[in-house]
Amino acid sequence: MKIMIMGMDGYLGWPLSMYLTERGHEVSGIDNMTRRKTVTEIGSWSATPIKSIEERLAAYKKASGNDLTFYKGDLSESSFVDLAIRKEQPDCIVHLGEIPSAPYSMIDVNHCNFTQMNNMVGHNNILFAMKEHVPNTHLLKLGTMGEYGTPNLDIPEGFFEIEYRGRKDKLPFPRQPGSWYHLAKVHETWNLMFANKIWGISATDVMQGVVHGLNTPQMVNDDLITRFDFDEVFGTAINRFCAQAVVGHELTPYGKGGQTRGYLALRDSMQCFTIAIENPPKEGEYRVFNQFDETYSVNDLAERTSKVAQEYGLEGKIWNIENPRLEAEEHRYEPDMKHLPDLGFKPTMSLEEELHITIPKLMEYKDRIEAKRESIMPKIKWTN
Amino acid sequence: MKIMIMGMDGYLGWPLSMYLTERGHEVSGIDNMTRRKTVTEIGSWSATPIKSIEERLAAYKKASGNDLTFYKGDLSESSFVDLAIRKEQPDCIVHLGEIPSAPYSMIDVNHCNFTQMNNMVGHNNILFAMKEHVPNTHLLKLGTMGEYGTPNLDIPEGFFEIEYRGRKDKLPFPRQPGSWYHLAKVHETWNLMFANKIWGISATDVMQGVVHGLNTPQMVNDDLITRFDFDEVFGTAINRFCAQAVVGHELTPYGKGGQTRGYLALRDSMQCFTIAIENPPKEGEYRVFNQFDETYSVNDLAERTSKVAQEYGLEGKIWNIENPRLEAEEHRYEPDMKHLPDLGFKPTMSLEEELHITIPKLMEYKDRIEAKRESIMPKIKWTN
Repeated sequence: MKIMIMGMDGYLGWPLSMYLTERGHEVSGIDNMTRRKTVTEIGSWSATPIKSIEERLAAYKKASGNDLTFYKGDLSESSFVDLAIRKEQPDCIVHLGEIPSAPYSMIDVNHCNFTQMNNMVGHNNILFAMKEHVPNTHLLKLGTMGEYGTPNLDIPEGFFEIEYRGRKDKLPFPRQPGSWYHLAKVHETWNLMFANKIWGISATDVMQGVVHGLNTPQMVNDDLITRFDFDEVFGTAINRFCAQAVVGHELTPYGKGGQTRGYLALRDSMQCFTIAIENPPKEGEYRVFNQFDETYSVNDLAERTSKVAQEYGLEGKIWNIENPRLEAEEHRYEPDMKHLPDLGFKPTMSLEEELHITIPKLMEYKDRIEAKRESIMPKIKWTN
Repeated sequence: MKIMIMGMDGYLGWPLSMYLTERGHEVSGIDNMTRRKTVTEIGSWSATPIKSIEERLAAYKKASGNDLTFYKGDLSESSFVDLAIRKEQPDCIVHLGEIPSAPYSMIDVNHCNFTQMNNMVGHNNILFAMKEHVPNTHLLKLGTMGEYGTPNLDIPEGFFEIEYRGRKDKLPFPRQPGSWYHLAKVHETWNLMFANKIWGISATDVMQGVVHGLNTPQMVNDDLITRFDFDEVFGTAINRFCAQAVVGHELTPYGKGGQTRGYLALRDSMQCFTIAIENPPKEGEYRVFNQFDETYSVNDLAERTSKVAQEYGLEGKIWNIENPRLEAEEHRYEPDMKHLPDLGFKPTMSLEEELHITIPKLMEYKDRIEAKRESIMPKIKWTN
């Protein structure tokens, strides 16, 4: 299959490019290095010393014999997106090419606008180019479980059937996102449903949980490793806890730590994307996959991380700090997750197994985390 | 009360500025003339020969003795919005300053992006400036009944209580908008709910029906008249039918003509806004008003317009043409409308009364409509 990956240079995009290539797919991709720039902007870097995209492509060619086709450019430029999609004629487009940070979007008005506009315009440009050149191609779009928020109801996969004042209808489940970034993801979900309605674009809208870990079988040497963010802006819960443990920093759940979310190991994220790609929707179908393995509270994660860290001689002290976000710290969380298992998804890595890979690997990069230690503690506040 | 009107030069903004001033409020406003430019871009103009904003302000001063404070500038520039709001310190901001056209947003990728970005960024900039300088000010934001779409359920005012799998919650009613423009309105509704949640911004989110008519008591001479669009892009159902009747063009409902929407006379729109302004929400409250008078099908509107047109010697022939839009042409439509009547809203103008004002007034401008007759029939198609 010809697959085009938007955001090829990212945390997920880079390992997915290699993973899909080894499964025999022909992979191309786009990136404009926004992630590298924004992490630099906020004063941090990847714990792993990632190579430039050019070096990565060469290293992968050398290690595997495989070629990846790469286009450097900005998804928010419609003519560029149009040209690249027209040229590649992919069977599937995997859209991971967005700014993925809630705190980044909460810095100020300019970061709010940049996150919403960059992400939405890039997505719109892909939709219009698909309509024009590859109307039957499958769009696999990365959304987030955070789109749903934490309602006092079970969370279905995208839609629910309800009765209201004696009448029934099947409607999109109301989203209650918790940051300007999460809002943009919801806006894109709505835009995508509309593109599906008017043009019949086939799509899988993936509501992914928080991904953790830094290793996949394709990373046979360090030139092929993916990025690993640990700062307050781009580092997510488990990954940040691992980095904290490695440099002797307290593990810092925010607030009471009862916030519960779905989580997924990096290599199982690859598995899920691959299942969706190789089992595409029907022509003109729009489907929503909730994509995670297990749900955990933040306190639970901190405790599990701490326990594994101690096996490696690390202290792993836990310190619940003031929550910079405005969010429920104790709440119900019962999301459905049936569509992917129905297609064969079986998690291969337990949280503990993944932690046993991540923590020792990360200890090799202790100095890099130490050098940007200041970027870990939260300074961006939701109510400011 | 100090009131700031975003979009002061527009169809609603201009008459509302005069209306509120005569009620004793101190009115300022912003506009960057986007509406004039976009109507020119698509090859049309206002049926009424409106004056420049500078001439309008002078004419209003001369006619009433009242001053309006005007800032020319772009709401999508955050520093400008910040400065103007800081300087004015309004008690209420009425946000009408957006591109208001579904067809315009459907022209191509650039018009889609421009509509969504212009409208969302302007709205974000207002929210951030309010948080910074006037956190207790009331934001009266213009949304549209079109945000809801046409579900097979009653349409509540913003929220509904539902039971799902045995559990209850009060949730935002799911929106199913029908154009890139309507989608942007929904995105802003979500952004506004979030600003209310994190910063306590008090807001009235107005889901307004289609406004028609061209006259308010403040338009004592033609220098004070508001714009009146009749082209396929900016002209809405009743107004376009009136213009068609005046130049002997068939009245053209789209498709089967069973599309049903809420409608409101221009002067009753002024009344509704005033009620919301003078009965502000509680501190930190976010409320949704469905704002219309009666619901009509498009066929019904065409027949009513035709009947009144015939009284003025016009033919008023009706011709149901192919629908350029993708929308249900026969559907249930039962929206609630209780919040405004609870605060005292009483419609003053029936549809027929308003038609008896609009059609003869418009006959004075027959030549201007004739000159842009080519702009009336739809060329922008939803599925293209």
